[in-house]
Amino acid sequence: MIVPIKLEKNEPVTYDIMIDSLPTLDFDTKVAIVTNPTVSNLHLQKLLDSIKGVKPLVIEVPDGEEYKTMDTVLYILDRLFENRFDRKSVLLAFGGGVIGDMTGFSASLFQRGIDFIQIPTTLLSQVDASVGGKTGVNNKFGKNLIGSFYQPKAVYIDPDFLKTLPDREYSAGVAEVVKMAVMFDKEFFEFLQKSDLKSRENIEKMIAHSVSIKARVVNMDEKESGIRAVLNYGHTFAHVIENETKYSKYLHGEAVSIGMVMANRLAVRLGLMSEEEAVKVKNLLEKNGLPVDYHISDTDSFYEHFFLDKKSNKGKISFILPKNGIGTHIIKNDIDVSDIKATLQEFGG
Amino acid sequence: MIVPIKLEKNEPVTYDIMIDSLPTLDFDTKVAIVTNPTVSNLHLQKLLDSIKGVKPLVIEVPDGEEYKTMDTVLYILDRLFENRFDRKSVLLAFGGGVIGDMTGFSASLFQRGIDFIQIPTTLLSQVDASVGGKTGVNNKFGKNLIGSFYQPKAVYIDPDFLKTLPDREYSAGVAEVVKMAVMFDKEFFEFLQKSDLKSRENIEKMIAHSVSIKARVVNMDEKESGIRAVLNYGHTFAHVIENETKYSKYLHGEAVSIGMVMANRLAVRLGLMSEEEAVKVKNLLEKNGLPVDYHISDTDSFYEHFFLDKKSNKGKISFILPKNGIGTHIIKNDIDVSDIKATLQEFGG
Repeated sequence: MIVPIKLEKNEPVTYDIMIDSLPTLDFDTKVAIVTNPTVSNLHLQKLLDSIKGVKPLVIEVPDGEEYKTMDTVLYILDRLFENRFDRKSVLLAFGGGVIGDMTGFSASLFQRGIDFIQIPTTLLSQVDASVGGKTGVNNKFGKNLIGSFYQPKAVYIDPDFLKTLPDREYSAGVAEVVKMAVMFDKEFFEFLQKSDLKSRENIEKMIAHSVSIKARVVNMDEKESGIRAVLNYGHTFAHVIENETKYSKYLHGEAVSIGMVMANRLAVRLGLMSEEEAVKVKNLLEKNGLPVDYHISDTDSFYEHFFLDKKSNKGKISFILPKNGIGTHIIKNDIDVSDIKATLQEFGG
Repeated sequence: MIVPIKLEKNEPVTYDIMIDSLPTLDFDTKVAIVTNPTVSNLHLQKLLDSIKGVKPLVIEVPDGEEYKTMDTVLYILDRLFENRFDRKSVLLAFGGGVIGDMTGFSASLFQRGIDFIQIPTTLLSQVDASVGGKTGVNNKFGKNLIGSFYQPKAVYIDPDFLKTLPDREYSAGVAEVVKMAVMFDKEFFEFLQKSDLKSRENIEKMIAHSVSIKARVVNMDEKESGIRAVLNYGHTFAHVIENETKYSKYLHGEAVSIGMVMANRLAVRLGLMSEEEAVKVKNLLEKNGLPVDYHISDTDSFYEHFFLDKKSNKGKISFILPKNGIGTHIIKNDIDVSDIKATLQEFGG
């Protein structure tokens, strides 16, 4: 006997990303702000002033990628249970990508899912991480290996928060912007080359353009079964670099910067990008204060690490590369091991 | 500036529940069987014999509700990473409700979600838990408080596995069957009253009827924003009982049996069910070897525990009760505290 199950999910999931000053937020439910001491010291009062109708619970977790762990998520969940949060309660992710990923993940897990809102305070999270519903934590095997797809109810992007952002973190955000340009939009790449990326006007343009690209890609492929994987350009290499350096030497965007340079070396080797364009990308990254080199001490070990990455399906590694120079993309999982290892050796020895 | 996100989820999630002998399962991906030593000793060889194309990884976790924890889920995930499982890999949940909930939860978390198949071996999981996609674990604050909604790709229900099931566990499954009958189907309740529930023919009828009710309810309301909550009849009380007895004295179905008796006492007090029908339900449970009484030592503490339950929204407790006797249901969250406490006192002192 067969009983069919058919869950009608005909209602599309919709939410808005607002790039503007932080609006007034009015709640009639319990609300928790998840943040870290750095963001809290600089900006918590501004957020508290904008919240009406409820006194939020503030949950502070340590600052840094090395605390993006299941332990921290379980700590967040414990605070919610202790304060009797329920299925109608709302979480606010107030910080960078690490805070956003862990808050979204906590929201997805708490009583099988409650609402959350992204209020990103770093450039990286404003242009990329806060949009699209990827949540999760790292573990000893690698980055973001445990998590869920779970969309926020809204994303509020206030560029004013960037005024206090350290230069290094700002640069890390620019890396993800460059990523979108190289993969999807040559004109945007040229804008980035010629513009002062620290003027307020250009910051807003850069955020709006990046978020639009990201939203378009996520709209096409939420669960990353196809084109969304293109947003991982540079990340296959970056995740190994972050793992080798124990998530402490490089900011995520910095590792992505190096990872894109590595991916481009592979692309040049495969004839997918000209030497000249690879240099252009490297120069743009360097001009924006990003690292572009890394010493691979053991190419075999670096290569083995790829297989722990999420992008490794059935033992094959997918590489995201320019297809025909800047503004184009291709997902390749049939690259000769010798080409991959030769590319790694350019960074070794 | 506003960038809208619209994720089109127009494809309904569909899968089949098959009530029949275990079919041949053919895979071209990595497969892990998650089970416990009890089920493994009795039935693993049968499952292994039915799997073609791949040698599955077998992950054994300790048997029992007290091991339904995040620690056990993280143990399962670690085994998958160590064995280089990837996004195409498949998990098989082979056991009762605890195994099903934890395997589904692990599948939902591993690299943001991989496929899993339910192969339930207990009556409780065959008639109820394996269908509908509720996954999760317990924590110190209560049952199933951390989890996700995540649907299996298929459910294979083979009643042959029940031949080795201890009587006590079989009875625990009958409790959930009685739950569905009392809430949704008076005729089914009468069938249960008059039938030998251990004959093969009646077992298949009971499973098919229960699964059909469950599937109908889940089809209407996957995320439990409405009618699906009716399946929690008896559970508001049961979760407190399980928590007070540290998940060790009663099987889940046994606690649900007591919980339904308690819910019916409340229903009688509120005029929603006749004394006579409450006795009928109690007798049916008792006839099937289920506990129907519990000594509440501290009614205030018992009452306070309700608020940690997932069914407590914005400080209100929802009770699932018969609306007008057997075969009908209502969700009430406006019951006087005095009526609730008086009901608890019937079981105290």
